[in-house]
Amino acid sequence: MLQSNLLIVAAAVSAVSALWPLPTQLSTGTTSLVLASDFDIDLSVISNPPQDLLDAVSRTKSYLQTDQLEALDVDRGASYAQSLQNASSLSSLSLSFDSGHSGDPTSISEEVADAIENRVEGYTLTVPEDGSAATIKANSTLGLFRGLTTFGQLWYDLNNTTYTVEAPIAITDSPVYPYRGFMLDTARNYFPVSDILRTLDAMSWVKMTTFHWHMVDSQSFPLEVPEFPELSAKGAYGSSLVYSTDDVQNIISYAAARGIDVLPEIDTPGHTAIIAEAYPEHVACPGATPWATYANEPPAGQLRFASADTTNFTASLISSVSSRFPGKYFSTGGDELNTECYAIDEPTQADLNATGNTLEQALDSFTQSVQSVLVDDGKTPVVWEEMVLNFNLTLSNETIVMVWISSADAAAVAEKGFRLVQAPSDYFYLDCGAGGWVGDSPSTNSWCDPFKTWQRAYTFDPVANMTDAQAKLVIGGEHLLWTEQSHASNLDPIVWPRAAASAELFWSGPGGNVSEALPRLHDVAFRMSQRGVGAIALQPLWCALRPGVCDISA
Amino acid sequence: MLQSNLLIVAAAVSAVSALWPLPTQLSTGTTSLVLASDFDIDLSVISNPPQDLLDAVSRTKSYLQTDQLEALDVDRGASYAQSLQNASSLSSLSLSFDSGHSGDPTSISEEVADAIENRVEGYTLTVPEDGSAATIKANSTLGLFRGLTTFGQLWYDLNNTTYTVEAPIAITDSPVYPYRGFMLDTARNYFPVSDILRTLDAMSWVKMTTFHWHMVDSQSFPLEVPEFPELSAKGAYGSSLVYSTDDVQNIISYAAARGIDVLPEIDTPGHTAIIAEAYPEHVACPGATPWATYANEPPAGQLRFASADTTNFTASLISSVSSRFPGKYFSTGGDELNTECYAIDEPTQADLNATGNTLEQALDSFTQSVQSVLVDDGKTPVVWEEMVLNFNLTLSNETIVMVWISSADAAAVAEKGFRLVQAPSDYFYLDCGAGGWVGDSPSTNSWCDPFKTWQRAYTFDPVANMTDAQAKLVIGGEHLLWTEQSHASNLDPIVWPRAAASAELFWSGPGGNVSEALPRLHDVAFRMSQRGVGAIALQPLWCALRPGVCDISA
Repeated sequence: MLQSNLLIVAAAVSAVSALWPLPTQLSTGTTSLVLASDFDIDLSVISNPPQDLLDAVSRTKSYLQTDQLEALDVDRGASYAQSLQNASSLSSLSLSFDSGHSGDPTSISEEVADAIENRVEGYTLTVPEDGSAATIKANSTLGLFRGLTTFGQLWYDLNNTTYTVEAPIAITDSPVYPYRGFMLDTARNYFPVSDILRTLDAMSWVKMTTFHWHMVDSQSFPLEVPEFPELSAKGAYGSSLVYSTDDVQNIISYAAARGIDVLPEIDTPGHTAIIAEAYPEHVACPGATPWATYANEPPAGQLRFASADTTNFTASLISSVSSRFPGKYFSTGGDELNTECYAIDEPTQADLNATGNTLEQALDSFTQSVQSVLVDDGKTPVVWEEMVLNFNLTLSNETIVMVWISSADAAAVAEKGFRLVQAPSDYFYLDCGAGGWVGDSPSTNSWCDPFKTWQRAYTFDPVANMTDAQAKLVIGGEHLLWTEQSHASNLDPIVWPRAAASAELFWSGPGGNVSEALPRLHDVAFRMSQRGVGAIALQPLWCALRPGVCDISA
Repeated sequence: MLQSNLLIVAAAVSAVSALWPLPTQLSTGTTSLVLASDFDIDLSVISNPPQDLLDAVSRTKSYLQTDQLEALDVDRGASYAQSLQNASSLSSLSLSFDSGHSGDPTSISEEVADAIENRVEGYTLTVPEDGSAATIKANSTLGLFRGLTTFGQLWYDLNNTTYTVEAPIAITDSPVYPYRGFMLDTARNYFPVSDILRTLDAMSWVKMTTFHWHMVDSQSFPLEVPEFPELSAKGAYGSSLVYSTDDVQNIISYAAARGIDVLPEIDTPGHTAIIAEAYPEHVACPGATPWATYANEPPAGQLRFASADTTNFTASLISSVSSRFPGKYFSTGGDELNTECYAIDEPTQADLNATGNTLEQALDSFTQSVQSVLVDDGKTPVVWEEMVLNFNLTLSNETIVMVWISSADAAAVAEKGFRLVQAPSDYFYLDCGAGGWVGDSPSTNSWCDPFKTWQRAYTFDPVANMTDAQAKLVIGGEHLLWTEQSHASNLDPIVWPRAAASAELFWSGPGGNVSEALPRLHDVAFRMSQRGVGAIALQPLWCALRPGVCDISA
């Protein structure tokens, strides 16, 4: 009988709890607790705390003061006023390492640059009901950081009182999948650095680990590569629309300090037409028309991978770019290769004739050359699914494969023994459903209609139709934004809070219920708004303030 | 041969022309002309120019300085540098009335408050190629204002030189349809006044005439009504989320000075549940569950139109609100009436029993009472289509009907002899295609999928399947934003530049070609961005800079 009551209380409480992603173990009570005006975060037991942890502590304290997030119920928390007057106040949060941890701590940034299987994100968090110190413990600096992020989601504001009504709180938490990402295409349209930094902040609030940066494509080359300065000088949309080496370093370090690894991508050998502006000798069928015969998007043009010179150029380019990223992973792309482009490209045909190679053999040589540069530099290559499903290529077993065309392809990738990231267009493509953008079509369709709702992403099964052995190869997933119809003006509303759905799915594990998740996702959106990220409204405010009442069954 | 060449030149020039909506008569040349540094707009021949015209002149001069819009071609206009050095410069634009115009002019605001058939928007505009004064002539102040708007779209910027390469320019222009609108729902979610004002600016740039303001609905009542203060005190989402009487006056006058009439809407007798917070005696089936049985959206609750008291209350409310709007039109709504709500409402059943009326007879009495208040105040009632298609009601012949459910319903409305506005969900609903928002559905669908692209709106036929007599009753059309999933963060990107499609359709007339329109619509979006409206990118910038090259046939 008592147990049954506790379950009911827990259900009612969880309706106003703003934790996202949901911790894997969570217990809450019903005692009110307010944050003391002199509340502080105590790191005194940590010797030589790394600077990025100190910065994270400062940001956490700042958010606690500035979030001013009112409870999402009809009276915005006013009914708690009486209980808050008599509540204990919390003066401090103590951070410490687990007893097994020894030596000076590594920084968040260092831990993020490690191989994904080596990163430790788990933590425990306690908030006693009597006002004695809250605690976060972890076996890594990254774990402490994840705990700080959770701590920042525990609180609401009522007339400048920062409070919870759910003490005591006990959390033991760690992610189900290590890879939880967001991909941004900065080539179809350019995004100022400030937009990327704001996006990284929002990603960190929902504990994402990876910013998959699709930096360049056939339409523009906004990346400064010091060894190949003409690429951006001639291939960027404008001299001010370039990510300089300093910008890149700024993005990497900003991300790393927030627990996010940057996975850079130079898509090859397709999606490279713009390289012809600087290096026409390396691009097959540049500007061939009709473009739709030779490329999935205008303009046509792909690297002449059958050429030894182009192979060397590409390997040097990848090496140059990769050397500026501290992470272990680098994507060489490999999607949407159009073989018609090579059929009409005389230099490619001449190269094939001279070597006696088939197109696929030439692609294999090219890919091995490019990937070996990465492997020699200690990197793990990442490729799109066609590189393993459409071609018979020699790839390192360590290669990570991005499944994008369809969720139905994941099992086939796993069957080939590769680790994979779930990035299927039928669940996680944020651009779908906004209509076609090609110039002369009154059609209403985008190729990947319909719009992918947060609900659809949230109910994705990462291991559907997989054997246990195949399922073990899934390292996580990501939301993606291709930007044919996006730039700074709609970045926030097209991404947030929708992309938070995959962040929770891959942290907390699949099987979540959209009715249970919606009230918390409202909180995510409202908190993001308070912090300057333009998340959309998921429902009329009337519904947001009445969890469950706008369910169809209510 | 010469003519053929001219046609080719004209086609090439129109590709970079940024006029939107396209003037009904336009001729352009190929001479370069720059704006003089001391360029001014001359109203000296206009006696007692109204203040809102003077303000419009100031805004136009300001935009000419601040737009700094670069040409949308690959070199952003750099190839014109040489010809601009030798170009004549334009020192002034003269505004004057046609010779038939006499007496002191009326203001833009006064003309906008007139009946729609009396408004005169036509103008002629000339820009000589030799630097002699440009001219705008019209037979109304509103016409001069429309001409100023066009003049502001003629210019690009190259290194702080404001120029055209299309002089001489001669335009004779007037709209095909007088009603060109945008509807905003401020009830499902609230929009700050500043967002509405910015939207009015953007509307005026594409020569829209009507801000259809769906002010209140079942979820919130953000409108202050001094005679019924409890409506917003208890029905708004918060005390700061109210449009005060001053706010309303500000919105009306801001719109009017920009050539825009505000069409206020108090939707009745459905979409009124929130009134129960202040006046429970007037609302049938308040909060009845399951809500889906009694209302299209939660919460259930509709005005007790069979009650004489409720009828008087509603008439008083409409009269109070309508008295604060200077325009000729007022919408009493009338959509989505749910009869199940009345079947379970005992007071309504008692009223029907007492009078012997059927539900439809009671609705007829209610509607006549409410509409007669408007007619007595000199207003023309506006209603949603169900009021003429679903019920046999006695309505003034002057009533204007909004077609919303489907474009297929327009002919039936016209057949009943009513003037109509084309607002069909299958072409002009900006919210469609973003997924369902009801709480417990993982479905990806919104009821009016798919997303309505600008191309679809642009190719709408306003008189499809109509006789000539029926077609004459179409007074125009509008884009609409229902805001279950919108608030300030996504207002601009969900509306712009998409809604410009209907603005051109109803000004320039149907039959436009999306390939021809796209380059100009890019210009609309880029100019909006320069002026602080967050329009989205329609294509990769690579395509925007190469008109036609991203057409599927290119």
